[in-house]
Amino acid sequence: MAGIVPSRRVRGTPFLALVEAAGAKAFTVYNRMLLASYYESYEADYKHLKEHVQIWDVAVQRQISIKGPDALRLMRQISPRDMDRMAEDQCYYMPVCDHNGGMLNDPVAIKIAEDHYWLSIADGDLLQWVLGLAVGQGFDVEIDEPDVSPLAVQGPKADELMARVFGDIVRDIKFFRYKQLPFMDTKFVIARSGWSKQGGFEIYVEGGHYGLPLGNILLERGRDLNVRIGCPNLIERIEGGLLSYGSDIRRDNSPVEAGLSRFCNSPAEYIGKKEIERQKLNGPNRQIRPLEIDGADDLPHNESGWDLTAGSRKVGLIASSAWSPDFETNVAIGMVDKSHWHPGTRLEVHNKHGICGATVRESFWI
Amino acid sequence: MAGIVPSRRVRGTPFLALVEAAGAKAFTVYNRMLLASYYESYEADYKHLKEHVQIWDVAVQRQISIKGPDALRLMRQISPRDMDRMAEDQCYYMPVCDHNGGMLNDPVAIKIAEDHYWLSIADGDLLQWVLGLAVGQGFDVEIDEPDVSPLAVQGPKADELMARVFGDIVRDIKFFRYKQLPFMDTKFVIARSGWSKQGGFEIYVEGGHYGLPLGNILLERGRDLNVRIGCPNLIERIEGGLLSYGSDIRRDNSPVEAGLSRFCNSPAEYIGKKEIERQKLNGPNRQIRPLEIDGADDLPHNESGWDLTAGSRKVGLIASSAWSPDFETNVAIGMVDKSHWHPGTRLEVHNKHGICGATVRESFWI
Repeated sequence: MAGIVPSRRVRGTPFLALVEAAGAKAFTVYNRMLLASYYESYEADYKHLKEHVQIWDVAVQRQISIKGPDALRLMRQISPRDMDRMAEDQCYYMPVCDHNGGMLNDPVAIKIAEDHYWLSIADGDLLQWVLGLAVGQGFDVEIDEPDVSPLAVQGPKADELMARVFGDIVRDIKFFRYKQLPFMDTKFVIARSGWSKQGGFEIYVEGGHYGLPLGNILLERGRDLNVRIGCPNLIERIEGGLLSYGSDIRRDNSPVEAGLSRFCNSPAEYIGKKEIERQKLNGPNRQIRPLEIDGADDLPHNESGWDLTAGSRKVGLIASSAWSPDFETNVAIGMVDKSHWHPGTRLEVHNKHGICGATVRESFWI
Repeated sequence: MAGIVPSRRVRGTPFLALVEAAGAKAFTVYNRMLLASYYESYEADYKHLKEHVQIWDVAVQRQISIKGPDALRLMRQISPRDMDRMAEDQCYYMPVCDHNGGMLNDPVAIKIAEDHYWLSIADGDLLQWVLGLAVGQGFDVEIDEPDVSPLAVQGPKADELMARVFGDIVRDIKFFRYKQLPFMDTKFVIARSGWSKQGGFEIYVEGGHYGLPLGNILLERGRDLNVRIGCPNLIERIEGGLLSYGSDIRRDNSPVEAGLSRFCNSPAEYIGKKEIERQKLNGPNRQIRPLEIDGADDLPHNESGWDLTAGSRKVGLIASSAWSPDFETNVAIGMVDKSHWHPGTRLEVHNKHGICGATVRESFWI
């Protein structure tokens, strides 16, 4: 595992002291920030996440603020989802695509006000896409990256922990909705969302100096809940079919290939619509599929994607894979050609240990 | 130093086997790729670079290809340099700015043909800016990231080594000009450029599979020149005043603040021109300056920028600093307010070891 040299360019987060104190053992770099990959181990973190509650430094999910008279007009252009039906407290997971339907990012859009949206982004400078569109067309909007750093509270005990800090009102927050709730001398957007299937919240911490006080009070109030500092977990997110932009899906994939057609329903002439509608009608030529890889807990770490073949023919790629202790199998996410994507199809996986078998599944595990 | 977990998202380069075999001891992540920070040590690498010749994996300098009937029209919009005076074999270092003159990147533009340019980018998805402008205005251009990975050959013996592999014709390549020269069954754009002041070339390796054969032949032919695999060197680039986008300069800086006014001479109505021209006329409020920090070779690594103060007043920030063995001082690059930027001004530097003195210099060291 290569060591990484910190610099002003590869930034820390407002929660870094908590992450270091909790003993993160490995990191990735995401939006030019350090993001922990695991603490005790992928498996120990996973078991804990499914049973208790974790606090995740997901400040790497940077916000793009789009504000001004033309904010909605710009959102209608970039969003395959119907912006005009977005409630005032709603969050939209959405693929953002180029003119050919190629995915540029898959942010969560948050409606702050009628003329103000945040995009909580995956890895990539989506700000530059939005800015280019706005400047190129002379739109009247301000686009910048505010000092907002999400902290996620995830796991079955998340409601209880959040209620202890923000009050029982958090229990009323619906899925992908938010409330603005007070903390110290400020208030935070708090949404029921997060990159796990265990339930929980994302707190959009506006003002980096609130990061440590908030983290510390969550740790303190959650002691008897066995709260821990954690991070998005590779195994759990594969089981749940949560896609990683840059790994599972890229600009050479459409949202239809990514299995995200249900989020492409806007009546507006959004960018990429023509190709997306064509693929929705005719079906894509390849698509994201869950796969089970043969063997025990002895596969190498998936460093750069593994080819999927059917005999001598390449029919796909697995970008994410891990041993699942709960399902006692190797869970994986692959992009598989139409010819071989039917559930039950047997394929070969090529990794640095050699070749092994895999089976296309009907659905993800959780 | 945190360990980094590889994934498909944080990519390797076509030269990774060479980098690993040469024993890179630390990395950074740049454009979602691993970039070595040093091999033996910053100082040993530095001494070698100034005396011999090094081969650098700078595949992280991804190319944005802009091709089509509207390519020049788009380049005129994004470039503060006069695109109409660019020779057919020329490379332009250029700041690329938003509508307020804020720097979005500082690529090297390469004119491949009248209707085809590459932008060899610093860290950041400048592709999305260019794509947003093009799509927003309906320009007839294709914008993508081709399979091109630069390999730099840097150091005083670079001409000799390159001549042994590509022929004496490389000696005729002028500064920031290129020739297309044959290699195996293909040809590469080879420019006299690179992120050091020791002279040398950048080979734009088109086709990842040529990476290892090229690296190996350079190593083989350069054995008696004491060639080594290396990487951009922190000390040497600070001595030479080579700026790191994301560390020394960011979107909240104009090219005038970055000391790059001489590259802002386009007669066209490029994006950001109004503010840049205003700052060129009136002078900026702060600007990049070389600084010498007091003390011996005992400063901590500069992890996130150090505040510069004059008494109780913050007057700047040092994002890059290192001990220079040749100049026997701590060399640094800072952004300093106009009130305190004059050569000889004494300031205080705040780092995790405490406070020490620094002096603003007239010019960089080399």
